[in-house]
Amino acid sequence: MPTLDSSPLGLHRVLEPQGVLPQAATRLDPRPEIWLDEVRIDVETLNLDAASYRQLAEKHHGDGDAVRAEVLDIVAARGKMQNPVTGSGGMLVGTVAEVGPQSRLGLAVGDRVATLVSLSLTPLAVSDGLERWDGRSEQVPARGHAILFGRSIAAVLPDDLDPRLALMVMDVCGAPALVARVVRSCVKDQASQEGIDPSRRGLRVCVLGGAGKSGSLSLAAARDAGAVHLIGVVPTEAEAMTLRASGLADEVVVADARSPLGLSTAVRAVGGPADVTVVCVDVPGCEQPAILATADGGTVVFFSMATSFAAAALGAEGLAADVTMLVGNGYVPGHAAYALDLLRRIPAVRELFEARRG
Amino acid sequence: MPTLDSSPLGLHRVLEPQGVLPQAATRLDPRPEIWLDEVRIDVETLNLDAASYRQLAEKHHGDGDAVRAEVLDIVAARGKMQNPVTGSGGMLVGTVAEVGPQSRLGLAVGDRVATLVSLSLTPLAVSDGLERWDGRSEQVPARGHAILFGRSIAAVLPDDLDPRLALMVMDVCGAPALVARVVRSCVKDQASQEGIDPSRRGLRVCVLGGAGKSGSLSLAAARDAGAVHLIGVVPTEAEAMTLRASGLADEVVVADARSPLGLSTAVRAVGGPADVTVVCVDVPGCEQPAILATADGGTVVFFSMATSFAAAALGAEGLAADVTMLVGNGYVPGHAAYALDLLRRIPAVRELFEARRG
Repeated sequence: MPTLDSSPLGLHRVLEPQGVLPQAATRLDPRPEIWLDEVRIDVETLNLDAASYRQLAEKHHGDGDAVRAEVLDIVAARGKMQNPVTGSGGMLVGTVAEVGPQSRLGLAVGDRVATLVSLSLTPLAVSDGLERWDGRSEQVPARGHAILFGRSIAAVLPDDLDPRLALMVMDVCGAPALVARVVRSCVKDQASQEGIDPSRRGLRVCVLGGAGKSGSLSLAAARDAGAVHLIGVVPTEAEAMTLRASGLADEVVVADARSPLGLSTAVRAVGGPADVTVVCVDVPGCEQPAILATADGGTVVFFSMATSFAAAALGAEGLAADVTMLVGNGYVPGHAAYALDLLRRIPAVRELFEARRG
Repeated sequence: MPTLDSSPLGLHRVLEPQGVLPQAATRLDPRPEIWLDEVRIDVETLNLDAASYRQLAEKHHGDGDAVRAEVLDIVAARGKMQNPVTGSGGMLVGTVAEVGPQSRLGLAVGDRVATLVSLSLTPLAVSDGLERWDGRSEQVPARGHAILFGRSIAAVLPDDLDPRLALMVMDVCGAPALVARVVRSCVKDQASQEGIDPSRRGLRVCVLGGAGKSGSLSLAAARDAGAVHLIGVVPTEAEAMTLRASGLADEVVVADARSPLGLSTAVRAVGGPADVTVVCVDVPGCEQPAILATADGGTVVFFSMATSFAAAALGAEGLAADVTMLVGNGYVPGHAAYALDLLRRIPAVRELFEARRG
């Protein structure tokens, strides 16, 4: 074992530049020997994130051999799979090969796991030249090893679910966990308020993008946490039919989440404004519409990576809107287990995910 | 008066793209004729927000003439002063020139007011070429007019305070109001928890940029709301001396808010990690450092317009950090009155502001 002290954040694996966190590093040390608090994984599959794979495929005009060669070059040069253009990574599936005596991740040798921190900060070495991958999909069969730091997140793949299904759920598992927490807290606040207008009792939650992966799980989590009126907003009639059939929402409306007046009018027509609005739509410009669809004193949770901080902050101010706005943190303790539990308990959620898997 | 119906949100002034709110618009109609619910202001001073001014000054390497030319170009092209890179604006001071018969803002012709909605959504025309401005400060003497919509916020400048002082306070008044609300809620939560470690009782608040305008008001508000241990972080020994002399913080440390380890080590050395971390530093890259300086289960409030939504969301996930992250909404009911009240009640706050005014 190396003599340098390890850092739970992985700073001891940063080679260049010195002093930054692994995500910001240009080169990590992927040596297979582990420090006392680390875990080594034998890699089985890399799942490149959609933005990264798209950039590589477009750059090489769909030439799979060239894409494979570039991924190999990146991993060799950086000691991690981080697309230099998009900055993003993905996740991986593998088997636990060694667990340091001071690791607190709760993993055991032989566990089949998915990493829930980005590949963009995970030390990685590939040993098979990615020979089983044709470079034509985001799923990369691979041999090699990866390292988890002392403070990291990995989830054991459940025995009772198809791994591909479990992965799809884990990919968005931060959303239902945070929604459940926010809804529970709002329900408690409402219960402690005196003299509330009886017609406004019961928490109303609106999910933008309610038929999607994070959206459907968010609706299920809101119900689970005690919300009484659920509104799902979707962009097309086809998605509306799917969501209506699922029963996950009490009301389903078709509206453009980028249209300030269109959205708030649609939401008001079915019992809104909402006490909690959850943004799961990955398009820019939903900040002010979401704020306008939310009641005074309510909360907006932004999960979309297309969210602009300034548009949200100045947007609320510009509307003189007294709303609490949360950055959707992808990590809540127990998030993967909770999301898998929702999938198991609620057949409608499982059906939506199975239909997506194709 | 134009025949098109007005919208309290200002939709009738949006020229491009159609259907978005004024903040998201690339071009507004700044015509001086007002609709029935509008107010026209004769402009006296524009106060560019810090992030916007810094971006412009850095882009032009401090060349004031070039900065002035770009501000004029922006206002001419957009019909508002919204920095295209930061998305932010600022505020303005002026005199009410005309009040529409349906306006509900409570203003009268001749009132000297500050607008508390961002310049990034306020129709604006400049008529003097900004000839009295050297482009070297955020304060821009200007002639021209601006428009307030039906739903807007403007405050009459108080009689008992120097207008420049009142403005400096109003410019950042959203921060103390939100900090007070968050701290009060956390104090209440902590009081309701059973079996909390006695050594961890009492709410610890850390303010990055504690000697600045929003920072010093945030420290005062945190104390006012019941926090027991206040840490102020500043970038230089000079600012540390000022903040120490003020007594607004219990501990003052000099640290680089962009350094993940540097900041968290410094904060831990003086009683951290914090239960609530308030980011008032207008430089990019403070997201992960702020998260690392915050205790598990704690809250980070981002007021800096340099905050990146993705860096915050992915940063917390990458660190497996269970923190609540709030977008600093610039509007909380009563925010201007509360901030002015803090300035009046707490001599140290007033002294800091007077010293800055120079």
